[in-house]
Amino acid sequence: MAKLVECIPNFSEGRDESVINGLVEVAKSVNGVTLLDHSSDSSHNRSVFTLVGDVDGIQEVAFKLVKYASEHIDMTKQTGEHPRMGATDVVPFVPIKDITTEECVEISKKVAQRINEELDIPIFLYEESASAPDRVNLARVRKGQFEGMPEKLLQEEWAPDFGDRKIHQTAGVTAVGARMPLVAFNVNLDTSDITIANKIAKIVRGSGGGFKYCKGIGVMLEDRNIAQVSMNMVNFEGTPLYRAFETIRFEAKRYGVSIIGSEVIGLTPAKALIDTAEYYLQIEDFDYGKQVLENHLLN
Amino acid sequence: MAKLVECIPNFSEGRDESVINGLVEVAKSVNGVTLLDHSSDSSHNRSVFTLVGDVDGIQEVAFKLVKYASEHIDMTKQTGEHPRMGATDVVPFVPIKDITTEECVEISKKVAQRINEELDIPIFLYEESASAPDRVNLARVRKGQFEGMPEKLLQEEWAPDFGDRKIHQTAGVTAVGARMPLVAFNVNLDTSDITIANKIAKIVRGSGGGFKYCKGIGVMLEDRNIAQVSMNMVNFEGTPLYRAFETIRFEAKRYGVSIIGSEVIGLTPAKALIDTAEYYLQIEDFDYGKQVLENHLLN
Repeated sequence: MAKLVECIPNFSEGRDESVINGLVEVAKSVNGVTLLDHSSDSSHNRSVFTLVGDVDGIQEVAFKLVKYASEHIDMTKQTGEHPRMGATDVVPFVPIKDITTEECVEISKKVAQRINEELDIPIFLYEESASAPDRVNLARVRKGQFEGMPEKLLQEEWAPDFGDRKIHQTAGVTAVGARMPLVAFNVNLDTSDITIANKIAKIVRGSGGGFKYCKGIGVMLEDRNIAQVSMNMVNFEGTPLYRAFETIRFEAKRYGVSIIGSEVIGLTPAKALIDTAEYYLQIEDFDYGKQVLENHLLN
Repeated sequence: MAKLVECIPNFSEGRDESVINGLVEVAKSVNGVTLLDHSSDSSHNRSVFTLVGDVDGIQEVAFKLVKYASEHIDMTKQTGEHPRMGATDVVPFVPIKDITTEECVEISKKVAQRINEELDIPIFLYEESASAPDRVNLARVRKGQFEGMPEKLLQEEWAPDFGDRKIHQTAGVTAVGARMPLVAFNVNLDTSDITIANKIAKIVRGSGGGFKYCKGIGVMLEDRNIAQVSMNMVNFEGTPLYRAFETIRFEAKRYGVSIIGSEVIGLTPAKALIDTAEYYLQIEDFDYGKQVLENHLLN
């Protein structure tokens, strides 16, 4: 069985269709790589691509995309709502099949090195690939954004992991790293009181003392007049979906509030939901790799 | 995306390794087809092969396997515990991906016709491919077994769907048809009273007035001294796993009995468990085809 890696590069261009189409063309140009999805947001002025491929193909396509972006996106003129520090802002690699997070860390470092050597863009390694604890979190790495980067790189603790202490004049700085697949999972409550969703979000998320691999905030769904606990499950094996769900259920009870539904936004690995089915059906000794038919068909 | 069909032929040989190895070789000889699994039982004197392939490949491999079995298995000398009527006893085709049950019915009829024309084996179409209601159920079609078939074929209502009213002298008769994927799903109770498992099995199974696509019996797990409701979910979209599970839960309550676990035996399509996760997490508007990452990787 072939190893499969996902890559979800974020580019700081969500308006110029010729550049976006150029990126799509590059994304489709490498053997062994499939472009699963791409979406662009013009107010954010940002495009997110989702690619899956074998170990060699995914490295090649990631580099080629970063190269194309560096040649076609000028950060000195770029504006948009979304925080960003480079033409290619961030390049995460995610283990999908028959591959470990450690192997994805190695992949991320190889690609980071090549980007720096051939394109002269300084790189911060982040998430699982981070060289220091304060580089794990992307928001912290990116703080100051493109405009603040020249000065930030000169600070004692912010030397790039690859490259010198000066930005690429038009392409800025890029973050590269490995992370687990992320599931965007929102739970809807039968209340219009956003403060309840906020309190519960704080309880379930790692930063509030809750589950380590869960991030969450309260959100108001204005059109339905209900409050929602909106979560990113950043490691569904470390914090399974059902655990966050059942915790929200019993915490909501204190306020006489019930769960009325949930949403999974975008893509999810099958295993995130199958682990959940295993829990509720109390399945003994289920072997995901062997017993799920489709796992024998991927190669 | 390519259409994918599963085929699970059952052969009346589970002892002679040279014949079994010959079948394995044939199973691996067709392009576009993967042999997922094969298992042989010597007391049953039967082998079950699990193959997946594209529309052309699966038809070709099914025919070739039936041909090989007809040349190497002599039903006049075959004995074993499992009921059987032919060297190849039954050939079910199952829709896996981007293909309807109706298309699998067409596939089954083409293969049935070819087997009859080239090998002179009479064929009964069964399950979704059946030409009459009393041919849907395999046990009913096979009643009388190999030894009773010469006489059965002469009965008014038992003319084969393909071929004359006489068996192949050594290969007997074969059933061919399309059916939905089957999930073997067992639910364990915290009681050693088999009569409770029997009563509940009767309630959940279609033949007892329960769920149409569920078959079930009570079974004693002697080593654990617990009773089990052992089910075949023959259409997990018509009768989802969670529905049988929750029904067993509330029926068991009447006896003060609880569910202590469950088992999925062998292979299951991912969707059978993901549908279950959707139910328990109350996910709104989940699109299985689009939102499950792996579905974009199968081709």
